[in-house]
Amino acid sequence: MAAVDLASLAQDGGRILLIVLDGLGGVASAARGTELEEADTPNLDRLAAEGLTGMLEPVGPGITPGSGPGHLALFGYDPTAYELGRGVLSAAGLGVRLEPGDVAARGNLCRVAADGTVVDRRAGRIDDVRAREVVDRLQREVRLDGVRASFHHERGHRVLVVLRGPGLDPRVSDTDPQRTGSPPLPPRPLNPAAAATAAAVAELSEQARTILAGRADANGLLLRGWSGPVDLPPFRARTGMRAAAIAVYPMYRGLATLAGFEVLGPPADLDAAVALLDDARGHDFVFWHYKDADAAGEDGDAEAKVAAIERLDARLPVILERAAADVIAVTGDHATPASLAAHSWHPVPLLVHAARAGRDEVERFGERWCRSGALGLRPSLTLLPQLMAAAGRLRKYGA
Amino acid sequence: MAAVDLASLAQDGGRILLIVLDGLGGVASAARGTELEEADTPNLDRLAAEGLTGMLEPVGPGITPGSGPGHLALFGYDPTAYELGRGVLSAAGLGVRLEPGDVAARGNLCRVAADGTVVDRRAGRIDDVRAREVVDRLQREVRLDGVRASFHHERGHRVLVVLRGPGLDPRVSDTDPQRTGSPPLPPRPLNPAAAATAAAVAELSEQARTILAGRADANGLLLRGWSGPVDLPPFRARTGMRAAAIAVYPMYRGLATLAGFEVLGPPADLDAAVALLDDARGHDFVFWHYKDADAAGEDGDAEAKVAAIERLDARLPVILERAAADVIAVTGDHATPASLAAHSWHPVPLLVHAARAGRDEVERFGERWCRSGALGLRPSLTLLPQLMAAAGRLRKYGA
Repeated sequence: MAAVDLASLAQDGGRILLIVLDGLGGVASAARGTELEEADTPNLDRLAAEGLTGMLEPVGPGITPGSGPGHLALFGYDPTAYELGRGVLSAAGLGVRLEPGDVAARGNLCRVAADGTVVDRRAGRIDDVRAREVVDRLQREVRLDGVRASFHHERGHRVLVVLRGPGLDPRVSDTDPQRTGSPPLPPRPLNPAAAATAAAVAELSEQARTILAGRADANGLLLRGWSGPVDLPPFRARTGMRAAAIAVYPMYRGLATLAGFEVLGPPADLDAAVALLDDARGHDFVFWHYKDADAAGEDGDAEAKVAAIERLDARLPVILERAAADVIAVTGDHATPASLAAHSWHPVPLLVHAARAGRDEVERFGERWCRSGALGLRPSLTLLPQLMAAAGRLRKYGA
Repeated sequence: MAAVDLASLAQDGGRILLIVLDGLGGVASAARGTELEEADTPNLDRLAAEGLTGMLEPVGPGITPGSGPGHLALFGYDPTAYELGRGVLSAAGLGVRLEPGDVAARGNLCRVAADGTVVDRRAGRIDDVRAREVVDRLQREVRLDGVRASFHHERGHRVLVVLRGPGLDPRVSDTDPQRTGSPPLPPRPLNPAAAATAAAVAELSEQARTILAGRADANGLLLRGWSGPVDLPPFRARTGMRAAAIAVYPMYRGLATLAGFEVLGPPADLDAAVALLDDARGHDFVFWHYKDADAAGEDGDAEAKVAAIERLDARLPVILERAAADVIAVTGDHATPASLAAHSWHPVPLLVHAARAGRDEVERFGERWCRSGALGLRPSLTLLPQLMAAAGRLRKYGA
């Protein structure tokens, strides 16, 4: 059954606040519940008790989402229809505008041994000052034939590389071997049309090695996720809503930019992100992103993830007061169970709090309770129309 | 939302054991639970308690699946996209290779009265020896113009008929009236292109009547399910997994063959099927089929179906030990409630047991408990990606 076009039904209505706890979902074992189940979250529990609960599946059964697809689905974009490469996400996060025809990759500064094998994929977690020095030098000295390469420092060892020139094609394989003990991989064209681009990437990698040869900290560059700009239809045209984004981490601001959200801040930390909600009062839809749950999950640290969730819960009353939203949704973009120390395919708990939405019998926020909630287990893509409905923003369909 | 292409995400990982209790699902009444609910299944209950549970719907709401669609969905093939005719299934079960252009049907040896009406659709459940005699005679004496007919005995009254020749088309209606008291139906072309094939089927049926006219046990042949070979994309190409099939009954081995599984055995009985698991250790995905629950359900014998389920449960510890799988799934290909004495559309209980998958609060295996499991109520087609995820066999989707 086809999805109904929201734009054709959109009308003015209430304000929506979408709080995304990155990596919120977890996995229960015999010994313990999920991080959210174990966390002490009186404020989230109150919202759950007063509202509706359920479970969201970001991309599909068994599919572990990257951050791109996880957020796209929450913003109402089919994550199987719009593919955002790592390079494009990095560019968006840095506010680097890609032109049609550009290709971009995420780069890691790394350390390579004398025998050519990668010994540290993150260059010993090089600090920002030294990393910027390396990036500036690459920007000055790398010279490619007919292609302009630009290097943009992100954070720590992370670099964005953008190529601009005629005939570029992003279908080039990664040079990052994703493990130490192996040499960087040669970039291969994944389509014949990308042969020249692959050659340019090989030349760039070679020059980087030569230019950085004297450094002990970072003497190599690994590249992955070559991708070109993606045209997301603007969120406002699809929903009638002026959207704002508040996120400490650049990638999530970038994602919101791609959908045409107004990006506020950037906030330096959690408290600043809360304070920024005051500036979002003129917006109809506010995406508020919280990274700490995912970061702790990726580290495999269940206690830290529990603590991160509790930190958010403690801020919730202030968040709600400042946001002054009619509809509040709390969920995650994907699961990051500490037991797996990685993103996973497990469904993510959801709560929706709105006078018009009603309530179910679930009294606590957590997987084992939300599973029996009124919102059921459904694709994340189904959330946005339900939030718009709860805000009175969707007219009746059909006569 | 489109399904994500599993092949693009597949990687090496753990071993998966899929145990299919044919016809597992049941229907509860005021007086009693389903057969699975009533069965004493301590081993299945333990797996359910330690793992995840849910319900699977093989084809769609209200749709009663044949064995073909029921299994295709469990193997990850959309059962609405690939149609396996009865004739093709019979051929696969017998190991009869169909060439492109062949058409095949399932035949019933039957008994026809002097007035031309069918009096027994199964020729008095004719035994294998006499049935083979009949089939051999048909093979020797039936002669069609420009078409070669081959007859292969299955079991009892069941026969496979294959036509080979130029211009054949499977769109021909059944001659089996599916009831006694009526004459065999004339084969009709369901498409103009199948006119010659329908004529050949009519001629074949007529010759069979003439050839068998003197017999008291089987003097007619009813044909149904004309179909041509189907090209299923190989399971290994779709999933990266080497798959093995263990099944006592030929049709299920045939189904697995069509998907490119390596078929082990055949085992003579349940114990042999359990022992064969030792030979499947080199495979990534093992499909292990158990027929007895369905057979009892088809007979309308609830007690026998309960007993069949309990027999399987008693073998479970040995099965699990021999299989040495990282991921275990137990479910059915469809429901066969004894109260209906037939396949039905009712959802089928499912359990998935794997360290990475987690657990829910369900403590017993059975419809009334599995309905509140974490895996929800979903199409059977969604199972395979979840098993691959639990085995660590699917990479992250998107950046």
